[in-house]
Amino acid sequence: MPIRKSAMVPKQVSSQNSTGSAAVERWIRPEIRRLDPYHVPDAGDLVKLDAMENPYSWPDSLVDAWLDVLRDVSFNRYPDPTAHKLKQRLCETFAIPGTMEVLLGNGSDELIQLILLAVSAPGRVVLAPEPTFSMYRLITATAGMEYVGVPLRDDFSLDADAMIEAIKVYQPAVVFLSYPNNPSGNLFDAGIMQMIIEASPGLVVVDEAYHAFSNATFVTRLEDHQNLLVLRTLSKMGLAGLRLGLLAGAPQWLGELNKIRLPYNINILVQVSAEFALGHQQIFDKQTGQICRDRDALLQVLHSLDGVSVFPSQANFILFRVPAGLATEIFESIKSRDVLIKNMHPVGGLLKDCLRVTIGKPDENLAFIEALKAALE
Amino acid sequence: MPIRKSAMVPKQVSSQNSTGSAAVERWIRPEIRRLDPYHVPDAGDLVKLDAMENPYSWPDSLVDAWLDVLRDVSFNRYPDPTAHKLKQRLCETFAIPGTMEVLLGNGSDELIQLILLAVSAPGRVVLAPEPTFSMYRLITATAGMEYVGVPLRDDFSLDADAMIEAIKVYQPAVVFLSYPNNPSGNLFDAGIMQMIIEASPGLVVVDEAYHAFSNATFVTRLEDHQNLLVLRTLSKMGLAGLRLGLLAGAPQWLGELNKIRLPYNINILVQVSAEFALGHQQIFDKQTGQICRDRDALLQVLHSLDGVSVFPSQANFILFRVPAGLATEIFESIKSRDVLIKNMHPVGGLLKDCLRVTIGKPDENLAFIEALKAALE
Repeated sequence: MPIRKSAMVPKQVSSQNSTGSAAVERWIRPEIRRLDPYHVPDAGDLVKLDAMENPYSWPDSLVDAWLDVLRDVSFNRYPDPTAHKLKQRLCETFAIPGTMEVLLGNGSDELIQLILLAVSAPGRVVLAPEPTFSMYRLITATAGMEYVGVPLRDDFSLDADAMIEAIKVYQPAVVFLSYPNNPSGNLFDAGIMQMIIEASPGLVVVDEAYHAFSNATFVTRLEDHQNLLVLRTLSKMGLAGLRLGLLAGAPQWLGELNKIRLPYNINILVQVSAEFALGHQQIFDKQTGQICRDRDALLQVLHSLDGVSVFPSQANFILFRVPAGLATEIFESIKSRDVLIKNMHPVGGLLKDCLRVTIGKPDENLAFIEALKAALE
Repeated sequence: MPIRKSAMVPKQVSSQNSTGSAAVERWIRPEIRRLDPYHVPDAGDLVKLDAMENPYSWPDSLVDAWLDVLRDVSFNRYPDPTAHKLKQRLCETFAIPGTMEVLLGNGSDELIQLILLAVSAPGRVVLAPEPTFSMYRLITATAGMEYVGVPLRDDFSLDADAMIEAIKVYQPAVVFLSYPNNPSGNLFDAGIMQMIIEASPGLVVVDEAYHAFSNATFVTRLEDHQNLLVLRTLSKMGLAGLRLGLLAGAPQWLGELNKIRLPYNINILVQVSAEFALGHQQIFDKQTGQICRDRDALLQVLHSLDGVSVFPSQANFILFRVPAGLATEIFESIKSRDVLIKNMHPVGGLLKDCLRVTIGKPDENLAFIEALKAALE
């Protein structure tokens, strides 16, 4: 690899070893020093309705069968670097077209990082509507690119004109579209998304993290758009603890991304456990079906509450707005009644006065509603 | 985040959507397009002595106890993002000084990537002696920096003058020292390493992946050098399938690195399984002790073979040189006798005519020796 010597011959650098905070300032990139670490609140013994988790566990018989499979795992050996069997199973489960390639990551997060590292160059832009999943912005900083957020309309729908104009101006290397969108819960208009894909000079990543609750997908359009990639995860359907994400797209893109994938990124326990779980898809279908019904019931109840505006949801959470200036107080009041939801108000913008609740078990949803009603009184 | 508009206003970019290989060339960084993917040979049913794995598994009673622990895992929930309990256990096991911070990664690979992403800037250099662990170079490319390799001496010892001179000239952001070194197996001189740490303006990462076989460490020197980081992994001691690495160092560095760590990077199965395994350290001590004794015995046998030069090893593998021009032929001959080792000859340089064998079980080592003898005849 050629070394650009001119940039590296030191200008009389003292031989003294720089240590402590001066060295940190010299070497850690300023955009990283400015970051706050990603904060995850400790739920303690609270009813946990803050993190889009599936509240249901497995029947004992299924746990037994899973442990039987794990018994034969050779964890003294490196895992299959290609995770071949698991990939096959995922392609069947998610109906990925045979012409497409897939890559696995430790959650979608690792795949988002992989995409952004592959295209990173000074001055390049990553673009997404705002508000959306916060990791797009955070990982863009890690990858050393600029992030441009284009505001959604007041109802959290895409602003087609603003998106197309921003794509023309910024020529983004990557556009992220969360479908359904987190934290608003709605599905963007598929026609506008298609316009965005067609207008984009670079990659468009449709992030279908909440697919299990939406019945909508761009997987079926992968063959129509060579610059389209689709992200999925097993987290929301019930395997958040495993951290497994999947990226599907054209082989010419995924072949390049695969070169910088860390070779053994999916460990043997995840390979075996996820493959086993996907062989019992009916359990997850039943659980996610229940969650969808409970979401629709909860939407009705929230609609009926005075002072609450509810946004439509095709995900396993609901965003709602409370009377101006009271969001944090109401959030804390709900928490004091042992229910943890997510306060979106501090994010600002369209999320001003907004709270987000994940769909739990029926009794957990009831506890939330009771706590919210009490807080509103 | 401010946008440098001058760099981004397009110069009459056509509105046509660029797709296919032209788009790949436009957006994927050239240094990535030039890479070959990391290749892992399929061992099939061969005796597997190519990958520095511990050949021993666990007694059935321990497997039962492990599965009992897993039974209580809630994998529908996100894992503890800080992996607090596992980190505590690791700090005890590895005797990390209480003043130091630790970070966990999916293998050392993820931690190497984290370090390099944090300091990446155009023109910055990552430096290591050569030959060494190939991922330092590969991940440097991913992070968009320049890699400088400084040749080791003919006996794979550090060339102190060349290292110090290169550090002066290139002012590396990071220096990697693999201790013991892979693929040579030797421990570098600790005095020279200390000189390198003191002469380095940036970070020095001492990678102790093979610590379980070496009885040597820089962990005890962490408090003396604020720019020193130490890497460990559970892979070589017997948990390669879990992919767990640890980085120890001063809080002011690790606090910055933690900001760009993907928040839930260590899944729940790894957290629980690794913590369980480290609670039974005596099993690994027994296994690694056996491997060290078998390594020393194998060294003796290799020394006695005509035409073979053996290099000293403080790791769980041995590097040896065969008569000029015959390495690939001998490697294939050994493979045809159902034993897979590693052919280092294609790497060139000091590794010309060299092969590397991982220490297996006694009967596997014997099968290797018989195959090597037959190949040499």
